[in-house]
Amino acid sequence: MEGKTITCHAAVAWAPGEPLKIEEVEVDPPREGEVRIKMHAVATCHTDAFTLSGQDPEGLFPSILGHEGAGIVESVGPGVTDIKPGDAVIPLYTAECRECKFCTSGKTNLCQKVRATQGQGVMPDGTKRFRCKGQDLYHYMGCSTFSEYTVVAAVSVAVVRADAPLDKVCLLGCGVTTGVGAVRNTMKVEKGASVAVWGLGAVGLAVVHGAQMAGASVIVGIDTNPRKEKMAKEFGATHFVNPKETGSDEPLQSYLVNKFDGGFDYTFECIGNVVTMRQALEACHKGWGESCIIGVAGSGQEISTRPFQLVTGRVWRGTAFGGTKGRTQLPGMVDEYMNKQLKLDEFITGCFTLDQINETFQLMHDGMSLRSVITF
Amino acid sequence: MEGKTITCHAAVAWAPGEPLKIEEVEVDPPREGEVRIKMHAVATCHTDAFTLSGQDPEGLFPSILGHEGAGIVESVGPGVTDIKPGDAVIPLYTAECRECKFCTSGKTNLCQKVRATQGQGVMPDGTKRFRCKGQDLYHYMGCSTFSEYTVVAAVSVAVVRADAPLDKVCLLGCGVTTGVGAVRNTMKVEKGASVAVWGLGAVGLAVVHGAQMAGASVIVGIDTNPRKEKMAKEFGATHFVNPKETGSDEPLQSYLVNKFDGGFDYTFECIGNVVTMRQALEACHKGWGESCIIGVAGSGQEISTRPFQLVTGRVWRGTAFGGTKGRTQLPGMVDEYMNKQLKLDEFITGCFTLDQINETFQLMHDGMSLRSVITF
Repeated sequence: MEGKTITCHAAVAWAPGEPLKIEEVEVDPPREGEVRIKMHAVATCHTDAFTLSGQDPEGLFPSILGHEGAGIVESVGPGVTDIKPGDAVIPLYTAECRECKFCTSGKTNLCQKVRATQGQGVMPDGTKRFRCKGQDLYHYMGCSTFSEYTVVAAVSVAVVRADAPLDKVCLLGCGVTTGVGAVRNTMKVEKGASVAVWGLGAVGLAVVHGAQMAGASVIVGIDTNPRKEKMAKEFGATHFVNPKETGSDEPLQSYLVNKFDGGFDYTFECIGNVVTMRQALEACHKGWGESCIIGVAGSGQEISTRPFQLVTGRVWRGTAFGGTKGRTQLPGMVDEYMNKQLKLDEFITGCFTLDQINETFQLMHDGMSLRSVITF
Repeated sequence: MEGKTITCHAAVAWAPGEPLKIEEVEVDPPREGEVRIKMHAVATCHTDAFTLSGQDPEGLFPSILGHEGAGIVESVGPGVTDIKPGDAVIPLYTAECRECKFCTSGKTNLCQKVRATQGQGVMPDGTKRFRCKGQDLYHYMGCSTFSEYTVVAAVSVAVVRADAPLDKVCLLGCGVTTGVGAVRNTMKVEKGASVAVWGLGAVGLAVVHGAQMAGASVIVGIDTNPRKEKMAKEFGATHFVNPKETGSDEPLQSYLVNKFDGGFDYTFECIGNVVTMRQALEACHKGWGESCIIGVAGSGQEISTRPFQLVTGRVWRGTAFGGTKGRTQLPGMVDEYMNKQLKLDEFITGCFTLDQINETFQLMHDGMSLRSVITF
């Protein structure tokens, strides 16, 4: 089908607050610097749900959502030399052009090459590749993985080894990489460190897993859902704290500082709640504790604290995609999975088909799932 | 006078909001682990003024204020082996015991050895060494330098070379060390970096000076007082921005990000205003810019920002005493001054006697002075 428009199925987000609808869509061939991918497996993430809910002020409709997936390259556009049809790939919502000021800084993974157009729901040339019922559909996060075929910029594609099981490594497209990457790339957690993690969904459990791999000696999982305790410990948590059941009248941060030797070397907020972001900062150890914001807060919400918290040595950071440079680092993470060093299977709580996609969102909202994988 | 109480003059803070009063005070001899110092030169700082104003919720009265000074050891108490009478010294409000969890962490200068008692205005054994008119006076920041003689913990004393001019190196007790140290120890500004500094008092200008010594290529001084432009440039600023005169309707942070290539690698807030603290964070470059809070905000005030600022790579830090370990690092800074690498004379805008101390506060409030040095 190289050079031709492909007609296939996709889950279309027609309007905020409405369920996704499976439709026949037309997917144009890739243009210069673009790649068309046959998706094999995708997972649903809170960010997709956030946009679909209509709370995301930058959400665009109608569109094809989805940003966590894996597939096989179907064809490439002119000028694409380092990716070829048949390659196993993971689309990246954080591109890596290796040329921009950001990529060459050596200080960040936030490539800005396709940032502006990606935010506008279009390809780098300003146009779209999806149509349904005569109407153009917006792209989403540069990925739009909820489609049998998608088109992405070549700088937004990580090529991984051919023998990688796509229905597992699709999770490296977002959640697991974000959590493990935050531990490794952003916070550089060292052996023997103490760590606390707010929110034990897939990202939070990936932080727990990453901290264990880094050799942290104390790993405290924090969640109001008591069912998370067992899960957290399976992923490597040494302690579990349910904020509703501390039996203490103190603010949670004081309770934690008193219980855990003055506070933590590293804390991670994986909920997206500005109240827990503050708790995570203030539960850091005086003098050196560092807190990392991973969760995405609601539009317009603000974090706050007394500046004294920072003046006495705490550091407030954040991370996107775990500070991971996708093209450079995902192949190694796939190797780690294949070598049984990195867990992926354990994050998968269910397998579905595309027409069940709205069920996966319901499971997520009900707190019943970590990652639901949809295979095509 | 070793082992005897000394009667001398001191500026006593009898009550919040009242001018200091020169009184005859009795200074007891040093007890175990303590040192009695004959002060030679002291400078007044905004922190003294803040406590005297009554706005400092931890302020204690009556007390002897002052924390930036230099003198000669008069006598030492039992157990003090590394300091002897005749040593030139700078009292430290941030002690360095070299034994506590903080000192041995290698991660912070915030020694906690005498922290609790220092905050209560007493010596480590819980008692006081000052009396006036039959009444005990509180100690202040572990230093109480506004007295001809003072008693401090031995862990709170930096011994410096004997030929150091005390009426100059007294400035290393707080302001200059805080600014230069924030650049070097806390933020580790590297050659070629871009830097912006909010508030061009002594601390802010010390940041400018430190940034120049570190080889920063862009150093932007920011102050609403137009008279600061000349001063800032003498200390090494490459640009001066007066927020009242940008001619732009944008928020200051957007103005700066647009004007200075996407924002700064490092920013420093030296005012103590939570609004400018936010500006300083948000004027950092996306992906890697780091902001350091140096100024002390009013009691109960909070900083805030959108978490997106951190998620996109900005880092929020703070510093106390510029991250400096006083006993270890001040001798080297004195050497730098003696070798004409570190400016001190340029920060001194007037010389006074103790009975003129209230005038020096007035000059500070009027924005007319950097550092007023009082010699005994």
